[in-house]
Amino acid sequence: MDNRLSTGLGFDAHRFASDSRPLFLATLQWEGQGIEGDSDGDVVVHALIDACCAAADLGDIGSLFGVGPQSLGSGMRGDAMLSTVADMLRSRGCTLRSASVVVVGNRPKVGPRRVEAQQALGSILHCPVSLTATTTDGMGFTGHGEGIAAMANVLMDVART
Amino acid sequence: MDNRLSTGLGFDAHRFASDSRPLFLATLQWEGQGIEGDSDGDVVVHALIDACCAAADLGDIGSLFGVGPQSLGSGMRGDAMLSTVADMLRSRGCTLRSASVVVVGNRPKVGPRRVEAQQALGSILHCPVSLTATTTDGMGFTGHGEGIAAMANVLMDVART
Amino acid sequence: MDNRLSTGLGFDAHRFASDSRPLFLATLQWEGQGIEGDSDGDVVVHALIDACCAAADLGDIGSLFGVGPQSLGSGMRGDAMLSTVADMLRSRGCTLRSASVVVVGNRPKVGPRRVEAQQALGSILHCPVSLTATTTDGMGFTGHGEGIAAMANVLMDVART
Ligand SMILES: [Zn+2]
Ligand SMILES: [Zn+2]
Ligand SMILES: [Zn+2]
Repeated sequence: MDNRLSTGLGFDAHRFASDSRPLFLATLQWEGQGIEGDSDGDVVVHALIDACCAAADLGDIGSLFGVGPQSLGSGMRGDAMLSTVADMLRSRGCTLRSASVVVVGNRPKVGPRRVEAQQALGSILHCPVSLTATTTDGMGFTGHGEGIAAMANVLMDVART
Repeated sequence: MDNRLSTGLGFDAHRFASDSRPLFLATLQWEGQGIEGDSDGDVVVHALIDACCAAADLGDIGSLFGVGPQSLGSGMRGDAMLSTVADMLRSRGCTLRSASVVVVGNRPKVGPRRVEAQQALGSILHCPVSLTATTTDGMGFTGHGEGIAAMANVLMDVART
Repeated sequence: MDNRLSTGLGFDAHRFASDSRPLFLATLQWEGQGIEGDSDGDVVVHALIDACCAAADLGDIGSLFGVGPQSLGSGMRGDAMLSTVADMLRSRGCTLRSASVVVVGNRPKVGPRRVEAQQALGSILHCPVSLTATTTDGMGFTGHGEGIAAMANVLMDVART
């Protein structure tokens, strides 16, 4: 099969929630305040999905899962969303080669669970996934603790059509 | 010819204008408030140009088109700027393989015209271009509606020198 | 040797310092106000290191150099940190193919020293590195002059394990 190498970039940001909902990031549950969003607010998964959609020309997370409380994605966990996208990629002959995600925010501390998070994401996508985390030194909405952001890049072999 | 694979990253941000100028994004005209800038303020095109310049080692949009009201780029439309860059890439033996752009802002709604925008950019660059869009949940300068940002990544075959 | 192509994304942001420390960016010293940080605050180098760590699955800059005044990285200059990472990559059979960094901030003006900066980074990493710079039109923490940010992407050949 004749493939072309494709790059995909993704970005997402959500607010920390003021209620007691659990915190999900990179498909894992963490200690501390949760994140708002129609789904579980997992910005790592959402940025990864947008990067995969971009590389495979599948639209974006909004066109796949909808927006708002009546949408398909409403209440959906990040691992289920990511599995759905992995299935779509497979059925279209797209093969992920590499993925990298950066989380920007004050918390949670990703380092101690980096390997676990990378393996969780990689086992769904069947591809090496790396996760790094950084802060913005108290500046901007991530620095003020209002919310959390993530950006992702993937390399993908896409079947020529 | 011996080529090497190169990556280029680009970023741009501009304010929404307070006057009645038209809104250009991804070379298309959209409903609603326009964007400030020496040129037409098309952040998608500008981020893509910086990504292309980075991958091909051509400087950046400022070194190519200048800055300020007397510059070459002053009043220039995004499609013309992008065509100029596409010509420069061709004349240097650089071949774009893939491009991905993320728009971050409250408006315009990209989804309904994503395919049209991707085709407009792709026909100028002779390469598949994907466009995704996201918001920042009311946080930061994009969430407050002050302005709009874009980040772009390209993969390019560059002739070895 | 059997290699796989890997992508790595990195991001960093720091505050401008209020004291008279020198300004380091992309391993060069520049005119003007310095940047805070345990090390020399070189956001270009730090984003590049995170991108390299992501592509090679080496953790991130915090896990390599530590955080805080007692850390390995405390007081360390960007060129020394980047050299350390380049050595680690070499010893693991990882080969950088291309790197691109975007600086976002009001100053310093990168254009006049872009070639010098690219060569300084490239000579440490033994790979073409491009550097572009942009502002955010007075918006957000970079536009207000609070701080400076950088994002980086690398392509790397990683030995299969
Ligand atoms: Zn989201
Ligand atoms: Zn611009
Ligand atoms: Zn740093």
